[in-house]
Formats: sequence, structure tokens, C-alpha cells
Amino acid sequence: MNPLTYAQQQQAQHLQELIEFLRLPSISTQEKHNEDVAETAVWLANNMTQAGIENVRVIKTQRHPLVYGDWLHAGSDAPTALIYGHYDVQPVDPIELWDSAPFEPDIRDNYLYARGASDDKGQTFLHVKAVEAYLKTEGKLPINVKFIIEGEEESGGESLRAFIPANKELLTANVAVVSDTGMPSPQQPAITYGLRGNCYVLMDITGPARDLHSGSFGGGIDNPLNVLGHLIASFKDQEGHILIPGFYDDVRPLSDEERALLAQFPMDEAAWLADTGAPQTWGEPEYTLVERIGARPTLDVHGIIGGYTGPGGKTVLPSTVHVKLSMRLVPNQDPADILAKFKAHVLAVAPPTVSIVFHQRGGAPASVCNLNHPAMKAAAAAFTAVFENPPVFMREGGSIPVVGQFQQYLGLETVLMGFGLPSDNLHAPNERFYLPNFYRGIETSIRFLAEYGRL
Amino acid sequence: MNPLTYAQQQQAQHLQELIEFLRLPSISTQEKHNEDVAETAVWLANNMTQAGIENVRVIKTQRHPLVYGDWLHAGSDAPTALIYGHYDVQPVDPIELWDSAPFEPDIRDNYLYARGASDDKGQTFLHVKAVEAYLKTEGKLPINVKFIIEGEEESGGESLRAFIPANKELLTANVAVVSDTGMPSPQQPAITYGLRGNCYVLMDITGPARDLHSGSFGGGIDNPLNVLGHLIASFKDQEGHILIPGFYDDVRPLSDEERALLAQFPMDEAAWLADTGAPQTWGEPEYTLVERIGARPTLDVHGIIGGYTGPGGKTVLPSTVHVKLSMRLVPNQDPADILAKFKAHVLAVAPPTVSIVFHQRGGAPASVCNLNHPAMKAAAAAFTAVFENPPVFMREGGSIPVVGQFQQYLGLETVLMGFGLPSDNLHAPNERFYLPNFYRGIETSIRFLAEYGRL
Repeated sequence: MNPLTYAQQQQAQHLQELIEFLRLPSISTQEKHNEDVAETAVWLANNMTQAGIENVRVIKTQRHPLVYGDWLHAGSDAPTALIYGHYDVQPVDPIELWDSAPFEPDIRDNYLYARGASDDKGQTFLHVKAVEAYLKTEGKLPINVKFIIEGEEESGGESLRAFIPANKELLTANVAVVSDTGMPSPQQPAITYGLRGNCYVLMDITGPARDLHSGSFGGGIDNPLNVLGHLIASFKDQEGHILIPGFYDDVRPLSDEERALLAQFPMDEAAWLADTGAPQTWGEPEYTLVERIGARPTLDVHGIIGGYTGPGGKTVLPSTVHVKLSMRLVPNQDPADILAKFKAHVLAVAPPTVSIVFHQRGGAPASVCNLNHPAMKAAAAAFTAVFENPPVFMREGGSIPVVGQFQQYLGLETVLMGFGLPSDNLHAPNERFYLPNFYRGIETSIRFLAEYGRL
Repeated sequence: MNPLTYAQQQQAQHLQELIEFLRLPSISTQEKHNEDVAETAVWLANNMTQAGIENVRVIKTQRHPLVYGDWLHAGSDAPTALIYGHYDVQPVDPIELWDSAPFEPDIRDNYLYARGASDDKGQTFLHVKAVEAYLKTEGKLPINVKFIIEGEEESGGESLRAFIPANKELLTANVAVVSDTGMPSPQQPAITYGLRGNCYVLMDITGPARDLHSGSFGGGIDNPLNVLGHLIASFKDQEGHILIPGFYDDVRPLSDEERALLAQFPMDEAAWLADTGAPQTWGEPEYTLVERIGARPTLDVHGIIGGYTGPGGKTVLPSTVHVKLSMRLVPNQDPADILAKFKAHVLAVAPPTVSIVFHQRGGAPASVCNLNHPAMKAAAAAFTAVFENPPVFMREGGSIPVVGQFQQYLGLETVLMGFGLPSDNLHAPNERFYLPNFYRGIETSIRFLAEYGRL
């Protein structure tokens, strides 16, 4: 029996195993679930061992364990793929908006509903099942494979970030494969070849030492919330152009070829807008919407809290206000350089009536993968064969920091083979995975391993 | 015995009564204290009756009762003063910062510590004791007096606001007297002759219908927090000049005489600044600090909450953000006109990518009292005699809405005779009243009644 036939015959069994995997509430950001996360790592390691994967280990870290496994008998000429995924999931709040319990997987209309179904247990697991299909039929793989599956992707990823540079030998490979992205529709596969980076900053802006009565002090003491307004207005104009000096200095301009590629992306702008509920789309008028959300840098304020925020009114002139914001970066912006420019701008613009404390929270460079890498071509061929439609190449506006770390520490390009759909409700109630994409994902991974072994 | 001698001999008794008054936890904004508030009204009414005040009544309202009383036998030629105060108090949180229990009055270093000691039970009660001093010695007052004491000043004042226009006859008088303000130091009495008005607005700014992931949508959908920054920056420049079109149209310019009067106010700017803990003072450079905080209009943002405000970082593009702000007004700005100009400006400046909902919360015009009113002269003479120092005339940045209501419905000027000190910790832990000011307050009120009867 060949691996593809095996995968088709085993669909019910694979689904049953995925449901077991999804029953485990591996919410990495909530300490009360620490044991659940640990149990999930063990469950996954056992499943990988049963699939025939070798050297499977649950690796302790400062927080949540990593799961490693490999199969390295394809020969020294064969390439090695490092397959990454994560077994941890987002919290489930607001729980009352779920139509079925988040950890009691439920199938409705060909969708499997559960927290983590798409992000990322389902997409991780399909590679395990593809490898199983080879090992249970042919007893070998076309290429060498290593798995590194983390349990902290939804809560900072610090442990893997520390593990990679300390374990370069263990993780050495020719390419990384990550399935933690999506495709625009079930008929249209996609390979994400570019990810924005980011630079996240928290600021505390302090004026007076205590909240003051605005009647007695207003007009004579500056107000940190008023100052914050001026700062925000100085970051970006109302068309979306960032005003921080030097911000665009290192931005690699979009080439004509790249713009042509992005223009092929089948984006239904009206449907996309309707999904957001916003009155209209917005952004730099000299770029298309696809370019603005995937290939252009941005700055967004994510949260502000300051002054009196309870019911009714109170006339305080607040002491300290807190703001969170991030900048999405594109090639070749350096997060450290951008952070320095941001801070310099804030300190130049902020009046002497306030003091500002910065807290950085992570930063990752953007990444763009080489479309001519053999693994990229193998992935495209695999998608084309399974979906009977060639993939589009897209740039994703979000960040997957591990892609930058694979590049930085291991020198690896990453192929992002995504099987999620825009309606998967990631990080939201009623997360789901389109079941045909689970089965096609296994087949695509099987074909990818073969194609990459051949190229 | 004359009334002044009586007051001096009765100091211990008057203090004992004030302590009883302060033991009653009349927190008007907390429903669990509703019975305490009612009990306090009854206590005060009984004390007023015992003082010889006539027609004393506890008047039911929709919420907390009013206390009324009068003595009207000074003759038809004599003027009538309407004395206002409030017997309700602020909440006591944070309770752990009090050095003695807020409703167990404690005397330390000549200060009486208790919630309401200065604001406003002590300042209200001194007028009752002044009237008692006349009625227990001479059996009559130099002028006619009416008392109207409310129990909702700290929680909106709706009941009195409704009572005044419906009871013009009952409250008719020649002047209103309010002791709910302060003096700069124990040696320096003051008459507040101007109060700023206000116009308070709450706004909800909504962009997308739900929080969006800024990686996937940032750059393509506008962000209400970014919009809010631009709005705030459009309200006021960084020197404190308000940019809303027409905002200053009706501002009555400060006359040279008024500026000269304000320049005499003994303000220790360094001490004032040190108390705030701010790095430096601030505001319209063409006005003095005293003018800026008392006689110039302002706009302050009081609170913002929007987006993700929990620990750490999250990359949301928020759906709705909430902001509270108010404008302090000066003569002759009309709160309704200012509100209309504010809204028109916001709607003109806000981009079509967001929708805005306004919620108004009250509004009061500024008030400035005529320095040549006989009652004003009587108050100045009384202060000068008791403190052996003439009062300074000051404008207070805060608002006392009842002053505007007395003007609007009863046509009354108000004399603001304040006995509080800047260190009284109003609305804060360890509220206190300087005991010599309680006794001098009684004497000042006695002399005021005599002086106003003579003029």
C-alpha cells in the first residue's frame, strides 16, 4: 500500500486521534493549565512514537516542554526538513460565546470545532500523520525529518527561543516547514512567503505624582492623557504614513515582480471588509490593500488605560497613563534600530512636563523566503497535485517569530504551508478546522516529502 | 452677653456637637449608607431647632433629604441671606491610608480629623452656631436668614437642582452664602469671587465591529486608538490653547483691574508645584499661573480605556475605545454652545473610518460675583476683623454648580466664604479641619451677619 492510500484508509482513525489531542486543555498562558500542557506534550510524544518517529523526547524547559523526534535514515544525500508546530492553545474566553465546549470537539457541517483545531494542533498533527503513512507502509521516508513542537507559542515562546541557539546541531536541517498559516479558500491553496516582523513597546507616561483635581490644577499642570494624544498623532498621519524619523530608511522597496505576484492574490475586498465590520478600508493610498496588510510596515496602538475609567464622570488630571503599541516591520527593518528610532522620536517630541518609561516586549525581524528554494518548489507541486490548483504566493501581515529565529540561528529558509481558512476563528470563540483540509493536509505533506526528495 | 463672647465660651460645646455630626457616615453616593444619610439630616434638623432656627424641616426628595430652616423676624427692610451647605460626604476609600477611622473624629495638633470635617459639615455647621450665638444672647438676628442644606452634593445634586426652580418663593433672598471653599493659609482669609463652569463629555469611538488582529488587518483598517490620538491633538495645542473653532468666542477678557486683583493673590508657585509632584508648571504662556488655573478655560482628558490593557502585550486593533473629558468654562461661555462646538469639531475632524457616540454629563456655566455687592463688602469686613488681615479675592478653578443655579433661578449673587485650607485632604484619606478656623469661622459668620445688617 502506498502512503496516500494508507492516509485515505486511516482518515477515521486520524480524526479520532486528533479529537483526543484536542480534548487536552493545553492553554499555555494560564498557570492553572500547566499540568494539562505537560500532559499534552506526553500525549503527543507517545503518538509520534507510535507513528514510527524515532528519538522522541519531551524536553524540559523553564516553562512548558518541547517535543522533539526524528527519522534520519534517508541517506546522507537526502535533505532534512525541520517540521515545526505548537501544541499549546489560546485561552477560551469569552466562554459563553462558544456553541460547543472548547475542549469537547464537535463536528458540524464538515468542520471540527475545538480550541486549537486549526491553531495549531490540527496543522501540526497532519505532518505526524504524513510521516506515519510512510513508515507504516514503505518503512522509510523520502527525506530526513526532524520535528520540534513547542508548548509556548501562544505565551511568548521564550523556551524555544532559548533552545534553538543552544541546540544548533540537533536542529540542523536544509529547510524548515511550518503549518501555522492559512489559505484564502478551500479551493485555493497558498504558500506564505513573507511575514512581517514586529517591535512591541509599552510606555508609562507620568505627569503629576498623584491624580489631581482638574478644576484646581487644570490649565497649570500638563495632563499625560493630553500629551499621549499629541504623541500618537506624531507617530502616523491619518493616511497611515509613519512619521518617525528614519522609520522607512531600511525598507526594501516592493519590486515590480513582487507587486505583480501580490496583485494575483484573489482578495475579495468587499467580503474582507464586511467581515471586519469597519465602515471602510483604510491605509496608504499609494499601495493596494493586499500590499498594505502584508508588505508595508504599520504602527498600531493596542491599548490605553489612564485616568478615571469607571462609570460616570470624574474630573481627574491623571498621574500615569499606560499605552501599548507595536510596529509591524518589513524587510530589511531591524527591530532594534526601529526601537531606537521610536524612543528617540518620543523623547524628542514629548514635552518636559512628563516623564516616560519604556518597556520593550520582544521584537522580530520580518522574513521573506526565497521562492526558488527546492523545498518551496516541492511544496507548490504538492499543493497543486492535491488541490488540483496551483498555490498563490502571499505575504502575511502577522509575525511568526520562530521563522526569524530559524533564519538567524540555523540559517534556514522556512516554507509556510498553511491549511487554515479565514473563517477558522483563531483566538476567538468557535475555533474550527475544515476537515477536508485536515485530510488534504496529510496528503499534501506526503506529496511534499516525496517531491522534496526528488528535487 | 454678646454673640461673640457666647461663641467663645461655647467652643468646647460646639466642638462636641460637630464631632457628633461627623460620627454619622453620610456617604451619599453609596446606597448602603442611605439610612445614615437620612439620620444625619434628622440630626442636623434637631440641632438647628435647638439653636433657635424656626420652621426647620427635613424635606423628602427622590434621593436624599434636604434640610430647610429660617429666621425671618429682622424686619422687612433687612436683607435676607440664603445659607447653603451640604451634610453628605465623600466615600472613604482607600480606607487603609487613614491614620484614624474616618467616622471616629480625632484631634491631633489642632486639626480635627474625620471624613466631612472640612467638606462640608464643619463649614456648614459654623453658620448654624453663629445664628445660635445671636438667638441665645440677643434673641434676634441682624438680618433674615434661610438655610438650605443638601445631602447629595457629593453625588450629583439632582434633588436640589430640581427643588430650587420649584420653590423660588421659599428660597427668595438677597444673597446666597456658601462656605465650601478655602483660603490659602491660616493667616490669609480669602473670598472666592469666581468659579469656572464645566462641560463634561463621554465619547465612544468605534472602528471595526470586533477586535481585530493587528498583524492580519493592520494597515488596512483604521484603529480607533490612533484616531483618538489625532482627535486629542486637535483639541488643544501643546501650550494649552484650545483649537476648537469658536471656543473662545464668548470668553469675557480679563480686565486690567481683574488681572491686578489676581496678581495680589499670595501664591507660592514652588510650593504649589512641589505638592503636585509634576516636573514643572505649564499652560498658556501669556497668562500667569493664578490666571491659568482660575480664570482661563481648559480642556482635559480624564480617562481613556480601550484595546488590550491587561498584563503583557497583545496585538489587537480595538473595536471601541472610551474617553471622558471636560472643558472648564469661564464667563460668558455657555455650556450648551460649547458642547455643540465640541461635537461639531469632532465630527468635522474624525475620519469616516470610525463612528462616534457622545454622552453628555452635566454642564454648568461659570460664575463671577459682583465685588461691589453689599454682602461681599460685609464678608470682607468680617474676615478682616476676625483674621486681622483683609481677604484676598480669588477665582477657583473648580465648579460649584449650585452657585450657577442660585443665579439662574433665584437671581442671587453668592458670597463664597471659605474656611478650608489647601492641606485639608478633601476627598482623600485623613480629611481634616483646622480647629482655629472652625472657631474663627463662627466669629466671621457672626460679624458678617452684623455687617450685612448695617450696610
